[in-house]
This record gives sequence, C-alpha cells and structure tokens, in this order.
Amino acid sequence: MANSQPLPSWNDGAAKSAILDFVARVTKEGGPEFAPSAERIAVFDNDGTLCCEQPLQTQFFFAFNRVEELSAKDPTMAERQPFKAVLEHDYNTLFGLGLQALYELAFATHAGITDEEFVEIARGWFTTAKHPKVGRLFKECVYRPQLELLAYLRENGFKTYIVSAGGADFMRAFADEAYGIPREQVIGSSVKLRFDSGGDRVSLSKLSELNLFNDREAKPLSIGLHIGRRPLLAFGNSDGDLAMMRYARSGSGPRLALLLHHDDAEREVAYDREFRLSPLSEALDKAEAYGITVVSMKRDWNAVF
Amino acid sequence: MANSQPLPSWNDGAAKSAILDFVARVTKEGGPEFAPSAERIAVFDNDGTLCCEQPLQTQFFFAFNRVEELSAKDPTMAERQPFKAVLEHDYNTLFGLGLQALYELAFATHAGITDEEFVEIARGWFTTAKHPKVGRLFKECVYRPQLELLAYLRENGFKTYIVSAGGADFMRAFADEAYGIPREQVIGSSVKLRFDSGGDRVSLSKLSELNLFNDREAKPLSIGLHIGRRPLLAFGNSDGDLAMMRYARSGSGPRLALLLHHDDAEREVAYDREFRLSPLSEALDKAEAYGITVVSMKRDWNAVF
Repeated sequence: MANSQPLPSWNDGAAKSAILDFVARVTKEGGPEFAPSAERIAVFDNDGTLCCEQPLQTQFFFAFNRVEELSAKDPTMAERQPFKAVLEHDYNTLFGLGLQALYELAFATHAGITDEEFVEIARGWFTTAKHPKVGRLFKECVYRPQLELLAYLRENGFKTYIVSAGGADFMRAFADEAYGIPREQVIGSSVKLRFDSGGDRVSLSKLSELNLFNDREAKPLSIGLHIGRRPLLAFGNSDGDLAMMRYARSGSGPRLALLLHHDDAEREVAYDREFRLSPLSEALDKAEAYGITVVSMKRDWNAVF
Repeated sequence: MANSQPLPSWNDGAAKSAILDFVARVTKEGGPEFAPSAERIAVFDNDGTLCCEQPLQTQFFFAFNRVEELSAKDPTMAERQPFKAVLEHDYNTLFGLGLQALYELAFATHAGITDEEFVEIARGWFTTAKHPKVGRLFKECVYRPQLELLAYLRENGFKTYIVSAGGADFMRAFADEAYGIPREQVIGSSVKLRFDSGGDRVSLSKLSELNLFNDREAKPLSIGLHIGRRPLLAFGNSDGDLAMMRYARSGSGPRLALLLHHDDAEREVAYDREFRLSPLSEALDKAEAYGITVVSMKRDWNAVF
C-alpha cells in the first residue's frame, strides 16, 4: 500500500526522516519494535496543526457569522456583549471580555438546538465560507503536507484522530471531507447534552453549559476516556498540545511526538510565543528535553496548502 | 463478503428476518434506503446482551477476586463494608448496602492505579477466571448468535460499538479478543482520571471518583459525545438500554432496535422484571409501541454459547 515516494510535500531532513523511520519500525513484522495495528493510534491537534488558525481559529468565523444571522432575528443582541463587539468587528474588545464572554458566544452560536441540527448548520456554512486572508474555502485551508501524512499513516494501519480544543461537533461537520477522519475519531470541547424523549423522535439537545474545554491536560485525559490507549504518535503546534505530546512520547517502545512551528511569514504566518489565543512557548523551550521533534514550516514543507 | 448463509445460530423467524432485511436495505447501493458506510454505526449493550450476566455481571466477580487479593495485603478490609460482605460471600448484605457502597467497591478494586496498570490486571484475570455456573472462561461466556451478528454487521460495513453501564476500562481488557471490538469502540462507565507528569513517564491515574455511570439516558448522551452520530442499530436487554434503543430507532431512514429477552431457563436463565441488578420491564411493555423487535433466546437462537 505504501507510496513509493511518500510525503512529497515534505522536504528531506530530520523531521521527514523521523516520520519515515518511525513508521518503518512500528510496521516491520517480526522486528523488535513492531506494533500490532490495534496499537497504531495517531492523534493530531486541529487548529494550527492541520489547518490555518490565523488570524483566528475557523470556529470564530463561524460563530461571528452565526451572530450576524441570529441578530437579524433578535436585534437586541446588538446591544449586548459579547455580541456587540462581534457585530462591530471589535476583536480587541471581544477578547478583552474574558473567558466567560467567549463561552457565552459559543453557547449562543452552538447550543439551544439538537446536535443533528447543529451539524447541518455547520456543514452548510462550510460549503461556502471562505477564509478572509487565504482566500479559499475554510475546509480547503488545510495543510497539504499534513493530508499526505494522515494518508500515509492510514496506509500503514494507523487510526488517525483529531484531539483539539475546538468544538467536537463543529469539527465533525468537516473533518471527514477535509481530512478523511470520521466523526467518531474527533475528540474536542463539548457542551452538555440533554436527552429529549417527549416526541416521536427522541434527540439530543446541546445545552448552554460547558461539558469540557479540551485543552492542555484535558487532551490526554480525553484520550484515556475515548480511546483507552496511549497513542504512538502525537502532532501539535502549541503549549495546549504539550501534555498530549508528552503522553504519547513517554510510552514504551517506538513513539513520535511532532511540533509544528509556524515560522514561514512568506507562505503563511510566523508566530509562536505572542499568539494570544494559543501560544507556543513552553513546548518550544522543552521540545528537546522531552524528545519532541520540531517541524519547521519553512524548512520542512515545500508546499503549505 | 457476505456469508451465503449468515447468522447460522439464529432460527428463521421475525427477528432474523428483520436483521437480514435491514442490512439488505441499508447496503443496497442506489436503493432508497442506502446508508453510506460512515453512517453504519451499530451499538450493543454488553452484560446480558453479548454475554451472560447471571447470577451477576462479570465485573462483580472480578471485583470480588480483587478484594480477596487486596485484603491479603490489608487485613483491615475484612472488617469494613462493603468488603466484609464480599469476603463472606454475603451478597444479600452487599446489595442491601446501597449504591454508594457499590461505588466504594468499584473504586477500591478499579482505581488508585494507572489505566494501563488496570488493563493489565484485568487482562490477566480474564486469562484464567471461570464463570461459576457456565463453567467456562468468562471471556468465552459470550453468545454465539451475537458473535455471528457482530461479524455479519462488520462484513457489511458497520462499525460495531459496545455502549454499556459496565466499566469501560474493564470491558476494554477483553472486548477485542471476545468480540473483535477494539478499545476505542467501547463506551462505558468511568472514573475520573488524573494526568501525572512528575516522572519521566507521564501517565493517567484512575481516581476514586465517578466520572459517569453510563446507564439509561446516559447511553445516548455518551453516543453523542463519543460518536457524534445516531446509530442505525441498537441492541439491548434491559430497561437501562431503552433510551439508547429509542434513540437509534427514532432516527430517519432504516433503523433497527433489538431487545434480547432471556426466556430460556433450560439453556441459560429465564429472567426479566425481577432481576435486581438490571431489570427488563418497561422496555418489554413498550417494545411494540416503540418499534423495538423482541428477540426470544428460546425461540430465535438455536445455540447460546
């Protein structure tokens, strides 16, 4: 199944070699580091790891568009924060309102409907919504080298998962089409659900109450709950992924943890420690000590989108 | 892929016909009820649906054996409930102590170690532990007709899941070997986990605190969280499965909900409304109204184990 020249968008170098070497070792039957296919779990962060997260994560653009739609039906929203700031495109004010305001934004735009209704709305949005800077559909703002890596891992018997701080139901609306990752392999943040059995059709309603914000230590804990097995490979791009990368990397046998560094201002955006929404600082400083392989977008990728 | 004579341990009749007809409709490409493989999710309760749960669910026997082991190191356990009742085989007292005592039993025997250590202990137990009445290994106390059904569904592009009130990590220790269901397709009850990053090897510790008791309405809610998609097929055997069966059955398009009725005192045990641990009463009364197909062990299965 393996492509004769896998990962064509990856330049030769330490990162590509680490990937090819790791996959060769775990798939070599009879070899000392062979891992049965049941153990071949690979987890990827989403925003900034598989797709562009600048200037904001995709889900914010979705939420802003939802506020515009909802405020057309309820004009009083324009007078209330955080919606006022959204409608005025005043993002400094918005992000200055604090975490609770962001949750209110999320609840207003993601809850109060069933999970099935939500996924339909999000899928509809993805069919036409375009990234304001990249100039293509959001679902196409995904990194080509990562699509090649996901496919390469699957060809080698890996089950690929998303483990992200993004909303699980939001990512489920496009992960299959964009990445070939089915809904049940998407682990993310979530609101609580309510079982509604009043009518003929029972359903699950999304409530305005946080179930889990799936970031930092919550990521390995979610992996324990959902997968029940330590991944062999983890790929992230921020401090929010460090716990997950360490969890994968510190298991016994062959392990690979990868950290994408956005250092390519020309083809994308160069950012790390100063990115307010999802900084990369501690993970960069400790990558070597923890055995994490840093992937430079500039050096290691010959194509981005 | 389909076997020319599928489900050989199922007798011809309404239940077998319902299964064959359902699978034929959802897999007929170009047909009006065709379901893409991504939608082919089938969920099964475990205890009493896939394996014997009489006189007690398997996990109780494991917990009792763990109490015996642990009390050998800590003799004071024999003086404290619920362990005293366990060590005296006084199950009337044990189950009379209430739900909190059962949680204490679960925590003492399932927590305080990492999830990886726990799975190793449980896997070790399954290699030798025998059912006291059936007289075979617990992992072999599984229903042959259900193994055929699981395999038949997978041959037809279904992803098969366990959705049970049993402990997820406990079931993960044997579900792959017993049912061909990988760990990440086991959804069950769980304790909270803690991320331990002090040493070189980070790990997840199982805490003595309930995360979720996955019964009744919790089952469809867990399906929403873990799978994000309404199953096409659900199979249960008790009132604890009714919400999940209704959730699957009331979706649009072809759906199948099945309810196993243990009415075969000769080959197994006949029980329903009076079973203290997991009664079948409301689901039996309302099966017809909710479009749930009742499977009679006596009438519909020509083999049990």
